Amino acid sequence: MILNVQTASGPYPVYLERGALFSLGEKANLARRALVVRDDGVPVAYAKAVAASCKDPVIVTLPQGEGTKNLESFGSLLTVMAQKGFTRTDCVIAVGGGVVGDLAGFVAASYMRGVDFYNVPTTLLSQVDSSIGGKVAVDLLGYKNLVGAFYPPKAVFIDPDTLKTLDERQFACGMAEAVKTALIRDAALFDLIEQNTPAEVIDRIIEGSLMVKKAVVEADEKEGGERKLLNFGHTLAHAIESESAFGLLHGECVALGMIPFCSPSVRARLIPLLEKLGLPTSLDWDPEAILSAMRRDKKKQGDTITVVRVDEIGKGKLVHLPFMELESVVRGIRV
Amino acid sequence: MILNVQTASGPYPVYLERGALFSLGEKANLARRALVVRDDGVPVAYAKAVAASCKDPVIVTLPQGEGTKNLESFGSLLTVMAQKGFTRTDCVIAVGGGVVGDLAGFVAASYMRGVDFYNVPTTLLSQVDSSIGGKVAVDLLGYKNLVGAFYPPKAVFIDPDTLKTLDERQFACGMAEAVKTALIRDAALFDLIEQNTPAEVIDRIIEGSLMVKKAVVEADEKEGGERKLLNFGHTLAHAIESESAFGLLHGECVALGMIPFCSPSVRARLIPLLEKLGLPTSLDWDPEAILSAMRRDKKKQGDTITVVRVDEIGKGKLVHLPFMELESVVRGIRV
Repeated sequence: MILNVQTASGPYPVYLERGALFSLGEKANLARRALVVRDDGVPVAYAKAVAASCKDPVIVTLPQGEGTKNLESFGSLLTVMAQKGFTRTDCVIAVGGGVVGDLAGFVAASYMRGVDFYNVPTTLLSQVDSSIGGKVAVDLLGYKNLVGAFYPPKAVFIDPDTLKTLDERQFACGMAEAVKTALIRDAALFDLIEQNTPAEVIDRIIEGSLMVKKAVVEADEKEGGERKLLNFGHTLAHAIESESAFGLLHGECVALGMIPFCSPSVRARLIPLLEKLGLPTSLDWDPEAILSAMRRDKKKQGDTITVVRVDEIGKGKLVHLPFMELESVVRGIRV
Repeated sequence: MILNVQTASGPYPVYLERGALFSLGEKANLARRALVVRDDGVPVAYAKAVAASCKDPVIVTLPQGEGTKNLESFGSLLTVMAQKGFTRTDCVIAVGGGVVGDLAGFVAASYMRGVDFYNVPTTLLSQVDSSIGGKVAVDLLGYKNLVGAFYPPKAVFIDPDTLKTLDERQFACGMAEAVKTALIRDAALFDLIEQNTPAEVIDRIIEGSLMVKKAVVEADEKEGGERKLLNFGHTLAHAIESESAFGLLHGECVALGMIPFCSPSVRARLIPLLEKLGLPTSLDWDPEAILSAMRRDKKKQGDTITVVRVDEIGKGKLVHLPFMELESVVRGIRV
């Protein structure tokens, strides 16, 4: 399947296709120098498959994990490109999860003020979530995505075969974002996940998630309004995530973060679904610590905060909540 | 005078006005946090005048010189913004020459994927040359502007009164760029500079230079073709500059770099004008060293290089020159 995502600077294709990893050269112009960026959590065979399509590949491997997404890695990738004599007609290819895509995308956006960027997401989370949208960034001082750009890729290649090597917990985290997407905009996608074993219909789940993300992003490329819907569950998720003692992954925090912002009837379907997916639905948290983290949220404006609520499946909406009310929501759902 | 520069992402105003430095608050929304970036070559009074217009200014002073325009300064300015709690509705203001403008502009482009950027160029070179165009960048590994973005400012404020504190050599360097601009597109501007004492008609020289730059940049925001005209004299200039033993400033190298790429009749008017401006017109160089530097030029494609020629004043044109021919040009003009 090909999805053409429209942006202010022109459309780009997203290819969703088993085996896409091995046929990049048919769809992308790789008869040039290419920086292939992976992390050491991504099977090296994937990067090699991509590199095999390139005329002149330079593979760089970074340590796995959010810690890699910083200005030091940004500088070192740019330095490799300069040392290898990359020109403005060369390109950058990310092979891996969101960390690699965000970092390599920002490098591509900045080298000589922008070279072509191809994104090859290999985790479910990055396939359903971060591959569309053109947001690239690195973290700074513990703030996620503080430094970056809006820079659409030249093309995105999604190969669901790469999910075979993904561990169960990572797979579940990707599913949390797919459920989020379904809840804000696509009731049929929610039904599909609810009524099937996800791994068996994963191509359709990815496709459905991409369609929603495409529609939302096209309506609002630079996050003025509509795009904020994609933050559903994330205000609370980021606060939980910042309490690293819980040892939870991003998708797991999103699962927990959605629950309090649903109506009881939505929650009655959501909780069993999250349980089926192996995602957490309750946490023995300290509401004060969570609230203190939420007070530092970027989305907080004075005494109110913008959150997304889902009172009916498929219909997310933005709500400006007085912070006091948020406090009672957070305290109220303590398990 | 107000010049509205059109860009793909909307127009921005360039204010050319004596005293502009003291009235920023009337034209820009400064009722917010502002990072005011200067270097220690810029009178601190200028930064303070700008800061006085801001509700919540944070002044940062960097060491003067091209050496400051690097990824380390980029990271440290971003870190200051993060530590001071800057949000995406705050802004960055550059007060100084091209180094400060390019660096602070790239910081503004990248912090939270872009905050408002105001440019207040205080050198003649930056007033006539780098204030329009939306190109921001830092250097890497000795390559100029290797890492950056296309990021238009929210507004530019040019106050010719700031030139009173500029030393003669810096003033002459700015004039070199004004002469370059006149040669490629504006014969009347060339006449104006030729027939007057520049300091006495500097407002008109700046205005004329800005008009040309605006027209060229609007026609070609991302340097596909037309904009390359602005590189007139720069291919050779960069090569001379890279031979730091000469101890020449950028504008001086541009003066030298234009001469071989003019017709004899243009040269007959150009050389006396450069002499009047206090700019160099000859150099005891080693053609082999210069040629070796030119072989590493970004604009070199295989065995040819794109250069700008001026055979008639006001009419620059792009020429794809075999590198062999360039060699004889460079050897031929040895003084």
